Amino acid sequence: MSKACLAFLFRGIQMIKENERFDLISKTGYGIIQNKAWFSYGIDAVLISHFAKVKRKDVVVDLGTGNGIIPVLIQHAKPAQHVIGIEKQSQVADMARRTIAQNNLTSVKIVESDILNVLEKTGKAIADVVISNPPYFKKGDALINEEDVKAGARHETTADLETFIQCASSLLKEKGHFYMVHRPMRLVDIIYFCRTYHLEPKLIQFVYPNQQKPPNIVLIKCVKNGNKELKYAPNLYVYEEGRQYSSEIYEIYSTMGIDVFEE
Amino acid sequence: MSKACLAFLFRGIQMIKENERFDLISKTGYGIIQNKAWFSYGIDAVLISHFAKVKRKDVVVDLGTGNGIIPVLIQHAKPAQHVIGIEKQSQVADMARRTIAQNNLTSVKIVESDILNVLEKTGKAIADVVISNPPYFKKGDALINEEDVKAGARHETTADLETFIQCASSLLKEKGHFYMVHRPMRLVDIIYFCRTYHLEPKLIQFVYPNQQKPPNIVLIKCVKNGNKELKYAPNLYVYEEGRQYSSEIYEIYSTMGIDVFEE
Repeated sequence: MSKACLAFLFRGIQMIKENERFDLISKTGYGIIQNKAWFSYGIDAVLISHFAKVKRKDVVVDLGTGNGIIPVLIQHAKPAQHVIGIEKQSQVADMARRTIAQNNLTSVKIVESDILNVLEKTGKAIADVVISNPPYFKKGDALINEEDVKAGARHETTADLETFIQCASSLLKEKGHFYMVHRPMRLVDIIYFCRTYHLEPKLIQFVYPNQQKPPNIVLIKCVKNGNKELKYAPNLYVYEEGRQYSSEIYEIYSTMGIDVFEE
Repeated sequence: MSKACLAFLFRGIQMIKENERFDLISKTGYGIIQNKAWFSYGIDAVLISHFAKVKRKDVVVDLGTGNGIIPVLIQHAKPAQHVIGIEKQSQVADMARRTIAQNNLTSVKIVESDILNVLEKTGKAIADVVISNPPYFKKGDALINEEDVKAGARHETTADLETFIQCASSLLKEKGHFYMVHRPMRLVDIIYFCRTYHLEPKLIQFVYPNQQKPPNIVLIKCVKNGNKELKYAPNLYVYEEGRQYSSEIYEIYSTMGIDVFEE
């Protein structure tokens, strides 16, 4: 480990609070503050950051940014002009802000806001790209007896899927792109609400644990007021035989600057 | 070929008109009148007939029955109490009626009607199961310069996809099942209109030409006012390496009583 890297790690560790840890994201040159009691970033954040197409001049909004992993990965792999990460939970937003500061990512801004209030705060279509890795579980799907912060990240506590999609549509400029990662069992809701709010699904990719199991992740790209024709990206299998990651997963993680084992 | 079979074939041939042919559907013991200038039944009709679950007491409606292949296959493989095939083109409905008569399928009735008029004619929810292999191409997708009858079978000339789905919903009893085969590029329309008309998508299956290509057929099962959770049937690949049919296709065709090469 180089002297500069050690100094970076040392500063990062100084920024963490109780129950947090500071993880280096290997080849990105960045680090991320995570709280194991709440959640750590996983494959979904990596896949959607890889799936999204982002250009240098773009304004990107990450709806429900959590600890800010998507803005960090985007600015590493395909830097945009600005990335705005919106997070409703103040403790989590604070953690994301410290991560952004530690990484000196001046092009990233973390805004603490409930999705429900985003429209009032921004007031107009500002985004070329909206990315979202929203809570997966429906209101009422399970007893929410977890700690509040963790529940807010995993369950639709205040804003539901429809609200995320409505918000994404309102933030996007005409023909802007919306990228979302979600669970395939919610595909009907996703497609129905996207069409309802003028985000036309254009590209879909199903992610399977392996060749034998049904898909457990879906990636979708929509275009605001896009033409009606859905295309299919090749199916992605996370594992080959046994617990060996597939070559596609190695390639995606490598592109995003992450070692596979870090997940 | 047995004497009885020869007699059946002879009677079938006597029923055909100009440009038509009478084809035996190998192991079903049935035959079908087809007109090569319009269309012959293909893999889509076989797959949707196989995908649909039908019980002995069911009333089944086939929306856009064409030459009646779906009613014939259903009554061979999983006979229902009644199957009603609805076909708007009088020449095609006439062909289907002759097929049904030749096969002595007294439980099948062919009704000549535009989908748009079906509701007025039936007046109420009569069906346990609705099956449909509707026209695939959208109005305006291509110049419709084909012969009228062929164009009506392949293009949405009068009734569009929304009307088929609306009609299916109205025909179905509460919790009745709707099975449709269509093109994956239309999935957004399918899901959006099914949800709109209270046919909740519950099971989806993508069919691929082979492991290398994107899906080109989608099979979907909806339940009228069903719970919201979509499941995925295993992906189906038509060909293995080269032009060899997959074992799954052989099994499906065998269950439906058809030799694969007849398609």
